[in-house]
Amino acid sequence: MKITKPTLLLDEYKCKKNIQNMFSRAQLHQVDLRPHFKTHQSLEIGQWFKEVGVNKITVSSLEMAIYFAEEWNDITVAFPVNILEIDTINPLAQKIQLNLLIESKETILFLNKHLKHKVNFFIKIDVGTNRTGIMPSKIGTIESILEVSHDSEKLEFIGFLGHAGHTYKSRSKTEVLEIHQKSKNVLVDLKAIFKAQYPNLILSYGDTPSCSLADDFSGIDEIRPGNFVFYDLMQHQIGACTINQITVAMSCPIVAIHKDRNEIVVYGGGIHFSKDSITDENDVAIYGKVVKQKENGWSDLVPETYIKSLSQEHGVVKVPDSEIDNYKIGDVLIVLPIHSCMTANLMKHYLTTDDRKIAMFNSTVF
Amino acid sequence: MKITKPTLLLDEYKCKKNIQNMFSRAQLHQVDLRPHFKTHQSLEIGQWFKEVGVNKITVSSLEMAIYFAEEWNDITVAFPVNILEIDTINPLAQKIQLNLLIESKETILFLNKHLKHKVNFFIKIDVGTNRTGIMPSKIGTIESILEVSHDSEKLEFIGFLGHAGHTYKSRSKTEVLEIHQKSKNVLVDLKAIFKAQYPNLILSYGDTPSCSLADDFSGIDEIRPGNFVFYDLMQHQIGACTINQITVAMSCPIVAIHKDRNEIVVYGGGIHFSKDSITDENDVAIYGKVVKQKENGWSDLVPETYIKSLSQEHGVVKVPDSEIDNYKIGDVLIVLPIHSCMTANLMKHYLTTDDRKIAMFNSTVF
Repeated sequence: MKITKPTLLLDEYKCKKNIQNMFSRAQLHQVDLRPHFKTHQSLEIGQWFKEVGVNKITVSSLEMAIYFAEEWNDITVAFPVNILEIDTINPLAQKIQLNLLIESKETILFLNKHLKHKVNFFIKIDVGTNRTGIMPSKIGTIESILEVSHDSEKLEFIGFLGHAGHTYKSRSKTEVLEIHQKSKNVLVDLKAIFKAQYPNLILSYGDTPSCSLADDFSGIDEIRPGNFVFYDLMQHQIGACTINQITVAMSCPIVAIHKDRNEIVVYGGGIHFSKDSITDENDVAIYGKVVKQKENGWSDLVPETYIKSLSQEHGVVKVPDSEIDNYKIGDVLIVLPIHSCMTANLMKHYLTTDDRKIAMFNSTVF
Repeated sequence: MKITKPTLLLDEYKCKKNIQNMFSRAQLHQVDLRPHFKTHQSLEIGQWFKEVGVNKITVSSLEMAIYFAEEWNDITVAFPVNILEIDTINPLAQKIQLNLLIESKETILFLNKHLKHKVNFFIKIDVGTNRTGIMPSKIGTIESILEVSHDSEKLEFIGFLGHAGHTYKSRSKTEVLEIHQKSKNVLVDLKAIFKAQYPNLILSYGDTPSCSLADDFSGIDEIRPGNFVFYDLMQHQIGACTINQITVAMSCPIVAIHKDRNEIVVYGGGIHFSKDSITDENDVAIYGKVVKQKENGWSDLVPETYIKSLSQEHGVVKVPDSEIDNYKIGDVLIVLPIHSCMTANLMKHYLTTDDRKIAMFNSTVF
């Protein structure tokens, strides 16, 4: 397909390799892989996971669960239960094995009263990210939640779930592994406390940085990385992937060239990339990096060529003085995104590097 | 409608007042109002502009122009022409009065060769934002573009267009007015140079901060503000609006409460709000501010209650110690967005405070 406007390219070959790699890592470490599908949000890409042997998934909203329930029957919604959506939860719980996250007594009391079908639930533990979850020291709160489920025919406790989201702030493998070890131990310690009472309880854990870099998953039962399917420049900065493992890139037409200041303006802005940025070693904000185009895809980074700012539709690309004359209006730049989950969520479709369109969950239904 | 998930509320009454106010300001200053519709992206809201007397508009992409061409026949695409979309430009130019932005000789040569129907064009001038446009000192470049159009039957030069996007970095009316005056003068000076040759040339100018605050538009022919239809916390920080003039707000269910750290987690994240933020006087990043709910809408800010971080679906809300006990899981928080253009673009629909759904341009068509 001829590129005429901002388009999200997907290298299917590299993407399948990322999926195979993570599946192999899970097998090696004897954990189940329950990949998070909020990154790609696509039934078709989901099939690539089925092909390697994945049979259960994670999503971040009930709407996304409904979309994937067409082809998957064991889905964890890795977001604290929103009790206002009980009328969405009930039909979904009838259709598939739905696994929910609970972190308060209020929520489980509500579910106990209003659930019409059986669901499994994890207790969400705060392993250090301080976003959601119960602090692991609050054994009393955990017990009070479990107490409600004892008498419930609808609520089945299946384990503890943690997400070490603070690995995203790491800038080296050492930092990631340190957080990983601490976070994992939080869950392992809880398992030790509750396993006499719940011998089948599992530990669900694992963000992309940890799952890409760590080699000790002892005590963990399943991992839930998501971003690894595409990776991105943020993961690269963390040290979780190589540039070559990044499998999506934005294709952006050049609409203006300003040689005086070595800048190019592309059609591709915040409504395409999202406004996520990383800060380089010189404290410069970067919203995307340009890669070399090649037949059916892209290769290495073009040195010192990056998006320095994004407006709604514009991207301003910084180009070295020596290179600015090599670009012309109407050329297309290929740009690696900072945060592939957010970029994919905005773009809503993929174009594979062998020219095939792939649809994804369309979240615009009111 | 019962709110069960992140929903973009729109106060129709306040919104129509913003539209009327800006139209009155334009009349007072004897300039035409050609509002930018990239903020609301809605045919229905567009009708509210027709009701006050607006008959021409601005959009930020050809796709958006196609959407609005159903009901509007004079549309400026305020983005440098993307020559790769010539096959979109041609049918649109046949259907409506299409006005394009040109800032290079390469682009006008291309259009001169490939246009099938008449278009008007503005020359885009860089009035100081340094994003797009020709530097006003480059009279030679301007003349070389005009030279191409002399001999063209398809390309009609109608004037100079500037956008003082750098007002967005202002933090006071004084700063906005200073930028406004300089930017306006850049255009007025150019008009003086070219008006002998082009007696009908117009000056198109005007961002929301300038158009909300300035009182001197002498020499300007039309203004193109967009954000004012909704305003937002960024405009409030600039000083361009009051809190009471902000006409959209996100409604977000509470899914978790962490009293230990005075934080609430809402269902409402980066895929709903966008990741735009402002920094307050203490250098704290703010991603949204909570307002008081009232029947059919909202009123003032709730003191010191704001979104401190956003993940894909989560918003973490900071709440004063004295107030945390007033919230419970299943309540809904009303949150003013930082950047209403980006939030609306993500949400794709509005729910008016009198409970009516409003559709908008759905950019998911491949």
